[in-house]
Amino acid sequence: MTSFDNKFPGKDITPDDIVSKFPLAAKKSPDHKSRFEIAGVEFGGSLVPVFAGPNMVESEELIVDVAINIKRSGAHFLRGGAFKPLTFPYRSENYGETRELGIQWLATAKKETGLPVITEVMEERYIPLISEVADILQIGSRNMQNFPFLTACAKSGLPIMLKRHYGASLRDWLGAAEYLLVEGNTKVILCERGIVAPHTHRSTSRFLLDLQVVPAAQEVTHLPVVVDPSHATFWAPWVRSMALASIAAGADGVMLEVHPDPPRAAVDPLQPIDFAALSSLMSDMDSVARAVGRTVTN
Amino acid sequence: MTSFDNKFPGKDITPDDIVSKFPLAAKKSPDHKSRFEIAGVEFGGSLVPVFAGPNMVESEELIVDVAINIKRSGAHFLRGGAFKPLTFPYRSENYGETRELGIQWLATAKKETGLPVITEVMEERYIPLISEVADILQIGSRNMQNFPFLTACAKSGLPIMLKRHYGASLRDWLGAAEYLLVEGNTKVILCERGIVAPHTHRSTSRFLLDLQVVPAAQEVTHLPVVVDPSHATFWAPWVRSMALASIAAGADGVMLEVHPDPPRAAVDPLQPIDFAALSSLMSDMDSVARAVGRTVTN
Amino acid sequence: MTSFDNKFPGKDITPDDIVSKFPLAAKKSPDHKSRFEIAGVEFGGSLVPVFAGPNMVESEELIVDVAINIKRSGAHFLRGGAFKPLTFPYRSENYGETRELGIQWLATAKKETGLPVITEVMEERYIPLISEVADILQIGSRNMQNFPFLTACAKSGLPIMLKRHYGASLRDWLGAAEYLLVEGNTKVILCERGIVAPHTHRSTSRFLLDLQVVPAAQEVTHLPVVVDPSHATFWAPWVRSMALASIAAGADGVMLEVHPDPPRAAVDPLQPIDFAALSSLMSDMDSVARAVGRTVTN
Amino acid sequence: MTSFDNKFPGKDITPDDIVSKFPLAAKKSPDHKSRFEIAGVEFGGSLVPVFAGPNMVESEELIVDVAINIKRSGAHFLRGGAFKPLTFPYRSENYGETRELGIQWLATAKKETGLPVITEVMEERYIPLISEVADILQIGSRNMQNFPFLTACAKSGLPIMLKRHYGASLRDWLGAAEYLLVEGNTKVILCERGIVAPHTHRSTSRFLLDLQVVPAAQEVTHLPVVVDPSHATFWAPWVRSMALASIAAGADGVMLEVHPDPPRAAVDPLQPIDFAALSSLMSDMDSVARAVGRTVTN
Repeated sequence: MTSFDNKFPGKDITPDDIVSKFPLAAKKSPDHKSRFEIAGVEFGGSLVPVFAGPNMVESEELIVDVAINIKRSGAHFLRGGAFKPLTFPYRSENYGETRELGIQWLATAKKETGLPVITEVMEERYIPLISEVADILQIGSRNMQNFPFLTACAKSGLPIMLKRHYGASLRDWLGAAEYLLVEGNTKVILCERGIVAPHTHRSTSRFLLDLQVVPAAQEVTHLPVVVDPSHATFWAPWVRSMALASIAAGADGVMLEVHPDPPRAAVDPLQPIDFAALSSLMSDMDSVARAVGRTVTN
Repeated sequence: MTSFDNKFPGKDITPDDIVSKFPLAAKKSPDHKSRFEIAGVEFGGSLVPVFAGPNMVESEELIVDVAINIKRSGAHFLRGGAFKPLTFPYRSENYGETRELGIQWLATAKKETGLPVITEVMEERYIPLISEVADILQIGSRNMQNFPFLTACAKSGLPIMLKRHYGASLRDWLGAAEYLLVEGNTKVILCERGIVAPHTHRSTSRFLLDLQVVPAAQEVTHLPVVVDPSHATFWAPWVRSMALASIAAGADGVMLEVHPDPPRAAVDPLQPIDFAALSSLMSDMDSVARAVGRTVTN
Repeated sequence: MTSFDNKFPGKDITPDDIVSKFPLAAKKSPDHKSRFEIAGVEFGGSLVPVFAGPNMVESEELIVDVAINIKRSGAHFLRGGAFKPLTFPYRSENYGETRELGIQWLATAKKETGLPVITEVMEERYIPLISEVADILQIGSRNMQNFPFLTACAKSGLPIMLKRHYGASLRDWLGAAEYLLVEGNTKVILCERGIVAPHTHRSTSRFLLDLQVVPAAQEVTHLPVVVDPSHATFWAPWVRSMALASIAAGADGVMLEVHPDPPRAAVDPLQPIDFAALSSLMSDMDSVARAVGRTVTN
Repeated sequence: MTSFDNKFPGKDITPDDIVSKFPLAAKKSPDHKSRFEIAGVEFGGSLVPVFAGPNMVESEELIVDVAINIKRSGAHFLRGGAFKPLTFPYRSENYGETRELGIQWLATAKKETGLPVITEVMEERYIPLISEVADILQIGSRNMQNFPFLTACAKSGLPIMLKRHYGASLRDWLGAAEYLLVEGNTKVILCERGIVAPHTHRSTSRFLLDLQVVPAAQEVTHLPVVVDPSHATFWAPWVRSMALASIAAGADGVMLEVHPDPPRAAVDPLQPIDFAALSSLMSDMDSVARAVGRTVTN
């Protein structure tokens, strides 16, 4: 019996949903878990892959420097935004030029370090360009229910990380994943990154990391569930605590914002941790992972 | 002084935001209010226009029937979805075929009644088709922060109704409006349709109509603010109460879901009101509007 | 059929709750509505009584001045806090001495104007003292589920206004009301005063006025539902809009914070409106009330 | 610098609050952490004490059985409710008689096993009775801002666990703790037990465990922060995951609901874990604790 079979009033997901609304995302049995490889890294198994890198691909030097350093710490994927959804149409002065250039710089960093790359795609027309460097396409929170775009991404055949919208229920999220799976794309990763919540301890962010969604999602879906504590907390000093908690909660991966010099980050400077913090955190995450029968580093 | 000038901690919007993040959406003075005409109907003045129609354009007969009846009740715009964002990729049996056909049927209804039309657009490539019938393009909640799409819609030159995402702050919403305004499109209407909120009286919906956002938005922006109580409440018996409250709160328009036979609606049958309820509500809305110095019917 | 009978998943209140959890608070038929008189003012009928006054009974002069002025505007009850729940144990310098003295001052204001009084009680041992002046005992949000205290208040025999906790569901609220009704106390009034909600347009308050709860509550309970827009908005310029909306939504009363000189209010100076604003609002509320078949002033 | 010093708009807690609103609860330096012993168990040090037991003290046999078994698993405190806040005034048939009897039964269990006891107190007049058996007084969520009661509990001199209200901000919670500390009571423990949140993955509960509040609270207060994953998740299968995450997040204790036969629990049968699950969880919690430099069992 799962929680969705019981008689308690107020379910988000009903037994019927599992059968008829997201049959491909739903588990077929309690032990059902997707396992697949992306760029030689296994998802859904005992390894807990780590994605690390800056919010924005600010320059070639920066992204190569980050790639070298996160690789040294044992991270598995380089993350960095070239195409970025901005809340307002005006860029701040220090934002710089990224987009096509950012994709080139990511390619350089990948070539220099051999690290596979994940980066956000925001428009169908850029899928071919981004596919040249990305091992995983990231669909951002704000596009989680941009359904025609989901279909276009799925058709690329590339692995996809689907970030949860900060207002989305688990049911909404699995519905969006189903749009990807129905196209025959099986390498789909879910990523929790904080939800809107009442103002309970707001100091730097309006988001709250929802770790309870990890066991909730894993109860109904076989897809790997990654957690991004950097965007949720929006505050570097809380990232270590929430990254370790994510792994203990059973997350199938962790995404971290890392910058060589956080106070000088082009965007959201309160959020990234630096190389030393990452290195120490990788070791601590591995210890926690081993305590729950998994590993972060080899 | 607006609420955003005071020293209380915890502002969503700062004075600096108003100047640098959404200068075009921001009021220039306390009395600043956009007034413009769409298809001969004035927005931002004393009239409170009403948009009415079914969730989905189910058939030509249905949409023509609705158009005739809402016109008789005094509604100003026919609404109806031809392209619809579905949470899951599978259509229910009674969903029917809409999309291109739905647009044709809306055109018939418009021709037969003379009522102007508002309908949702979900993809850039359908803007030309939809523009043939729509007097206003509706951007749905789920696309509120699909920024390249916002730009494409704005460039069409058509008036736009921007629905607020159910997880969006006022700041996010005005940022999205700024993307439309910066393209030179000045006929932009905001529409509140319910937000995610703690489970306070959930019986049929997970949304809560946020009427407090009406004065909050009108404090900082000159754009008209419409309210859609049907999607928020998801429960027809509460629509009358919330429609009247919207007008008393100062809403610049009301959007209502109307169906000739609600229990047989193809989607969300708990939500629409029928023709008799609309007719009675139009009269009551007009009485409330007159009590606050406005009108609904002429 | 009410919304609680339908099959939609995710109900807060089930049909069984209505029968077995709060049978006294529940309506016996769709038209069931409590009507009772307090100090000559009818509740649950066509009148929409108005409660007005300062957050705190700061001094005898102030409360008498307020009583005279709100009576002139047509308000029905004088409100004012003598015993006040403070979030922190330290009083600010300008807080002054209230408590027993405040009760005396309320008695003076009542004697001078004839206005009935509502004031908050926080401890069982003060019920006798407060009963000497209060026509209605107010149970504050923070005590909504202080069950032994609810019982003690109910046993006083005095009419009670039960404010909803800002985190409480409708089910929780009706459960608390049932504790009052089960003691044989039938003059119970519910009061909505804002809930915690995601940070959607926070500028001055962390609360959001929940007007949707008015029709939701009235669907299942026969008790009158009052709305307090001052505490929810925490921002005087939004109070008018939300007070008018409350009446249009069907509220059975409105509670307003009024102060002769808001910027000098001892607590929460952003919240109260002044006498001129009240006077104008009373007239506008009456117009809206008449538009929906009710009245505020005679 | 803490998060509360930065310039980001929208803080819940300001630097001034720390100085003037809760000076006793606030840290004096970044390393400031309260360490104290209760019944020989140290709080605020490297040990992470575990509180285990049933929601309700159903019978003498049951509570003695639980005490023996949780002691065998290494738990540090026996928890169990004798006086319980019920949402509705009617008890279900299987609720049984507890209250004074429950206190006696707890005393028996304590005598037989030597385990110290924590139990909820709901009324000032029962403090003396409960003090005879309780090593820690538990103040429930619903009484978190019952200020006169907080003062009465503090004056008992007994150690206190203050559960966070499900609608309370961190600021509200620390304000309530300050009411305890200002009476000279220094053995105060905070306990997070889930907050109301948008309906993101509701299946069994309307609460969401807020683990982000652990680092947030520890950033500003020196008081130990315990986490109760049972009440938040309301679903036994998620408890293990959230208990491990709590420890990894840095919690200073964990409270678990344990019952010999969960489906037959008198209240909330979906929530408790059984003895075998506790035993296995104690071992896993210890492994995670050791991974972050702490211990659960000796």
